[in-house]
Formats: sequence, structure tokens, C-alpha cells
Amino acid sequence: MKLLIAGTSGLDTIETPFGRKENILGGSGIHASISASFFGPLSLLSIVGEDFPTTQVDFLEGRGIDTRGIKKASGKTFHWEGSYEYDMNHAHTKKTDLNTLLNFDSRLSPELKKAEYVFLANLDPDLQLMVIEQLEAPKFIAADTMNFWIESKRSSLHKLIKKVDFMLLNEGEARQFMETPNLPLAGRRILELGAKGAIIKKGEHGAVVFTPDAFFSAASYPQEELKDPTGAGDSFAGGFIGYLAQSGDLSPGNIRTAVIFGSVMASFNVEDFGPDRMRRLTHREIKKRFDEFKRFSHFDEEEKCWKNLNW
Amino acid sequence: MKLLIAGTSGLDTIETPFGRKENILGGSGIHASISASFFGPLSLLSIVGEDFPTTQVDFLEGRGIDTRGIKKASGKTFHWEGSYEYDMNHAHTKKTDLNTLLNFDSRLSPELKKAEYVFLANLDPDLQLMVIEQLEAPKFIAADTMNFWIESKRSSLHKLIKKVDFMLLNEGEARQFMETPNLPLAGRRILELGAKGAIIKKGEHGAVVFTPDAFFSAASYPQEELKDPTGAGDSFAGGFIGYLAQSGDLSPGNIRTAVIFGSVMASFNVEDFGPDRMRRLTHREIKKRFDEFKRFSHFDEEEKCWKNLNW
Repeated sequence: MKLLIAGTSGLDTIETPFGRKENILGGSGIHASISASFFGPLSLLSIVGEDFPTTQVDFLEGRGIDTRGIKKASGKTFHWEGSYEYDMNHAHTKKTDLNTLLNFDSRLSPELKKAEYVFLANLDPDLQLMVIEQLEAPKFIAADTMNFWIESKRSSLHKLIKKVDFMLLNEGEARQFMETPNLPLAGRRILELGAKGAIIKKGEHGAVVFTPDAFFSAASYPQEELKDPTGAGDSFAGGFIGYLAQSGDLSPGNIRTAVIFGSVMASFNVEDFGPDRMRRLTHREIKKRFDEFKRFSHFDEEEKCWKNLNW
Repeated sequence: MKLLIAGTSGLDTIETPFGRKENILGGSGIHASISASFFGPLSLLSIVGEDFPTTQVDFLEGRGIDTRGIKKASGKTFHWEGSYEYDMNHAHTKKTDLNTLLNFDSRLSPELKKAEYVFLANLDPDLQLMVIEQLEAPKFIAADTMNFWIESKRSSLHKLIKKVDFMLLNEGEARQFMETPNLPLAGRRILELGAKGAIIKKGEHGAVVFTPDAFFSAASYPQEELKDPTGAGDSFAGGFIGYLAQSGDLSPGNIRTAVIFGSVMASFNVEDFGPDRMRRLTHREIKKRFDEFKRFSHFDEEEKCWKNLNW
């Protein structure tokens, strides 16, 4: 067992200006796992209810995701209902039914304890900490969180930050958590709290990465086909950790490559509802978009640049 | 005469969480000119009142800015008063006294008509159009605008867009003008209206460039020393056009370099009130920061990347 992702599995009802979908596959663990599965095999630790369709489990298995860590509990699956207006940057939550999520079981099987690469998707930080404590020889741990936990479990998050390699947050969460509107300052404070790296996901503005040695800015894809942003951040994380686990290379240069793969996967995820775009995504398309990211962030001043200026 | 910048000259009163400054040098033309002056000589077309200090004119002249195009009119100089809260992304305007700005004279001297590179900083679009009409052999024209003109002179802006090479807008203005929350779509629409290129300035999120052939995303500097964002967009434009005029190279690669110089100049401008940081800025510092921009946006996947993935 090399890559473990822990997070929620859900059935989402989503409304955007482009349509409405009921009870579609969702949840932080699901979105991250589907994205990571394009890079290699993984196990998902999660929980679902009796209403979770077997066809969806089959879909996950078909993508190379080991679903034995998905506990089937009595009751209903975690359900989120939300909508987006034309400005897709903000989700309006209509309803959150935690249901079986309240019984999330963080105990790892002997096999899962051996995981080397771990992504703790958005989940109660105390559960995330319990997963970390059971790991026998982790090589790289990344974790995400959300505003709800920042408000309700700040001290658990402080403990978590000390134990992860990379903390992933979205822009608003980073500002809220680090209590500053200044993102570079928020990034630095996350490192000061003990993380080895911080990735701040900025949606349509890309992502920025802070490490003690360097700053890296990744563009976002100039996406006109934005149908449903749900799960974009989790898809980013899945591409990031999926590529890292598969390459087994934690050098600063390869971490930048992983961030671009994260950006690529997020850019596809938003093109259709839930994980629908991912269902028909190919390696060829991922490779093509990766190359596009290279082209649209590359610059190299002409040799004559400084000569022209005569500085 | 190679580079001409037309825009406002002002005396600003600015309050931010870091202090308050009264009647400091401001205005779109002034900020853009000071920034461009680091790259080569230029002429500024503008207007001031009787209260505009001679020492400031001397400062501009000392920076290689030909000030003969700055008309001295009776009455007071254009005055803007505004404040910023900790989230420096939005200015709160307290007062705008147009004063002499109402008498802006767009007539060009025979020498200024020969300008090859022209930046029309934020100004009444009808005045911007009148400047363009007098140019005898322009090689590259860029123009900026603001929400006030988008609301009040939309059809003049449509005419302007057809006559410029590059249109520069900030994020909010681009969305407002093109009537879409989707920035890539806004960029495409600006090109469809006739501009050869569109640069959307996103403040703390950098800048994106749209041309018919390519998309380019420039990072922003991870700026913790943000004291006063006034004039950042104009400084960006000044660095962009200043470098283009000096290098005389309009190739796509060199335009990307120019965008980075714009980003570099904007990143310095915000480090102190008004143009105070620019007063003590050196070529050495600009070059150093340019190199930093290269480092923090560069990525190049390891050769083994695709081999690892075995796609």
C-alpha cells in the first residue's frame, strides 16, 4: 500500500446556472481519489450509508481505487446540497446532512498503516490526527481542511499542521485561519506553525506554494467551460498527491510538477457536474493540458533584453 | 520622441492601515511615467493646477520625463482622497475633485505627434481617442480605463478598443465591461471587439494576457510589505510600455518579458505611499526582482516524469 486518501464520501445535490443534478457522487475523499487514480493505485478510507449505489463503488474499483477502506454503515450517506450563481467562486450551502459521517472510523487496517503517501482530505481534524498516529512509515503527508473546522477546532488544526508535510488550504480559509488578508503572510505563518510547505488554492487564480526555501506560483487554466466547481480543490489535491506517490520523488522541482498536475486535474473537474468529466478523461488529455500550462506560464527574456536596457 | 504617456496628474490624500499622507504625487499619468522612466526617456501629456509644486516637476524632469506636455492651468490640481482597509484590494473613495482635469488639452505638439509607443492611462476615452487621431506613425498603443468610463462612456470605449494594440484593465473592470464573471471569456470578448491583445491586471493575483494566439499568466510578487496600492496598475503599465519602447521589439516573447517588467514595477510601487518607493528604486533592484519572478514561476518536469507515469 503506497497511497492512502482519507476523506468524505457523499451524495451531492448541486445547482449551477448550467443545470441541477441530484444525489451525484461527491465528498472530499471521492473527488481526491478519482483524480489521484489517474496516476496510480490507491486506497480510500471513508464511510457511506445504505443508500450509496453499488454502481458507484464499482466505478471507483474500476478506476483502481481499493474500496475496502470504505465502511458501509446503517443510515444514509453524507449529503451536501448547494448552489452557485454565475460568479462560481462561492458556493451557497442549502443543506448539510452529516448522516453516517458522524460514525467515520479512522482505524486503519494493517495494510493501510503501511501507506507511504497520505492525503487527508477535508474531515474532522481529530480524525485526521488519528490517521496520522497509526502510520508506520509515512514519507509524505498532506492535509486539507475547511472554514467549519477553522472556526470550531482551531487547536486540533494547530496540532495537525505540525505533523504534516504540506498543508493545503483555499484562499479564504488561509486568510481566515492565519488571521490576515495578506496571502504571502498567511503562507509564512503556516510554515511557522510547523508545516514543511503550504499550498494555497486560489480557484480561477491558480495556486501558490510556500516552502522555507522558495515561492512558486502556478497559473490556473483559462477555463471558459466552468460548469460546476464542486470538488476542484479535492481534484487538485488528488493530482498533486497521486503524481508524487507514483513518481516517489519529493525534490522541490518534482513538487512543482505535482502542483501543475494538481492544477490540470482541477481544471478538468470543473468542466462538468460532480466527477462526470473525470469519468471520460484520458491520460492523453492530461498530458496535453500539462503542456499547455507550460506554454502559458513560460517566459524567458531575450538575450538582448539587458543589453537593450544597458543597465 | 519615442514614448508618449497621456494621463492624469494629481495630488492625492491617502489613508491606509500604515498611515496617512496628504497631497502626495498621484494620478494615472504620473504613476505610469515614473515607472516607465526607469527604462528610457518619455514625454508626459497631462495637466496640473497652480498648486502643483515645482519640486515635483523638477523630480519628474530629473527622472528623464519631458514635462513640456504638462499644461499648467489656473485653479487647483486634480485631487483624489481615498482609504484602504487591511484588505488592500479595494479603495474607498472619499472625494474626487476634478479641478483642472476638466480642461485637459489633448492637442499634441508636432514632436509628440511623432510618438511611436503610446500609453493612454486612465482618462476620458474621448480624450484618449483624440490623442490617437493625431499620431502620425504609432507602432504600439496601449490604453487603460476605469469603472467610471465603463458606466458613462461605453460606446467611446468600444471605439477606443478598435484603435489600440493592447487594452489594459483590472479584473473588476474587465468583468464589468464585458458583462461576465468569467475572466477568460472577458479576455476573449475584448479581442473580439478589436484589440490585438488584452492584459487583465489582478493585483495580488498577478496578470493574465490574452492574444489571438496565446494565453500568458504572470505571477504576482508574494508581497508582505503592502503599504499603499494606489498607482500599482499604472506602474504596471509604465513598466510594460517603458520596456517595450526601449527594446523596440514587439515579438510575443518580448511582450511577455514586458508584462513581467510591469509586474516587477507594480510590486515595488505598493511598498510605500504614492511613488515614494520609486524615488529610491534602482536598476539593480529591478533586475534582482525580475530574476525572482523567473524563479518562482518556472517549472520543468523531470525527464523521467512521463517515464514514471508510463502513459
